[in-house]
Amino acid sequence: MLIREATAADWPAIWPFFHAIVEAGETYTYPRDMDEPAGRESWMLQPPGRTVVAVDEAGTVLGSAKMNPNHMGGASHIASASFMVDPRYGGRGVGRALGEHVLAWARVEGYRAMQFNAVVETNTVAVALWKSLGFQIMTTLPEGFRHPAKGYVGLHIMYQQL
Amino acid sequence: MLIREATAADWPAIWPFFHAIVEAGETYTYPRDMDEPAGRESWMLQPPGRTVVAVDEAGTVLGSAKMNPNHMGGASHIASASFMVDPRYGGRGVGRALGEHVLAWARVEGYRAMQFNAVVETNTVAVALWKSLGFQIMTTLPEGFRHPAKGYVGLHIMYQQL
Repeated sequence: MLIREATAADWPAIWPFFHAIVEAGETYTYPRDMDEPAGRESWMLQPPGRTVVAVDEAGTVLGSAKMNPNHMGGASHIASASFMVDPRYGGRGVGRALGEHVLAWARVEGYRAMQFNAVVETNTVAVALWKSLGFQIMTTLPEGFRHPAKGYVGLHIMYQQL
Repeated sequence: MLIREATAADWPAIWPFFHAIVEAGETYTYPRDMDEPAGRESWMLQPPGRTVVAVDEAGTVLGSAKMNPNHMGGASHIASASFMVDPRYGGRGVGRALGEHVLAWARVEGYRAMQFNAVVETNTVAVALWKSLGFQIMTTLPEGFRHPAKGYVGLHIMYQQL
């Protein structure tokens, strides 16, 4: 597996799983009916943001991550990031590799912390992964997320100092 | 004191205290060198956001608040808001009146919670005011804010269900 900068040419490979994940509405706070141009704008970041893809030996896109400052001004030393793994390639460490990459990027860029603003508490695989990478659940916003099947559930804010 | 919708004609009255507060860099996460067009774009919101001003009997602008969804999609029932009071008119309840107005707006609009993402812990007057209006400190991001005089201080995330 290789993690490299995402280019415009990667978007057609990202969009199908991005769209499926967003439309399911279980893990992301994007509008479930987000269309392709809005999806591209939200995911394919310009500096100081950055987007990468994880690809296999054949060049197949397995997943993607975007990273960016989470605040401006006096809190601009806090980064954030988002991750999507193609469900067809789940369970093989793609999310973990992307997470490690993003944390390394944040350290190199001089960020002092990374914050995830909205981790749905029922997304237990992601919560466990971020914990294993050093993140703590700082708080859980009660009924912060409306899950399409489970109703109102908590929304974690996760954080780690770098 | 009256609270009413802000119009484009109010911006010249807002900008001087907006600019002074942002340039001081002690309470807001805006870039301290934010220029006037960027300030206007960040503060004068379009629907579904909304911006109001508090004015006295003579029509003088005493302070302003903006309010907006804090998340999209499955968390779009969480609102947020920001407040600026002209320091010349501090201590006379302008911030409290704006806070009460914003909470009433959020309830009428059907939001289920209000979240403040970045309340600097040394801004004790604001923290006490939001607590008195029902907000809780959900967590404090350690060293989340770089205060120009006090160095790295905590950044509160405050929340209340409506």
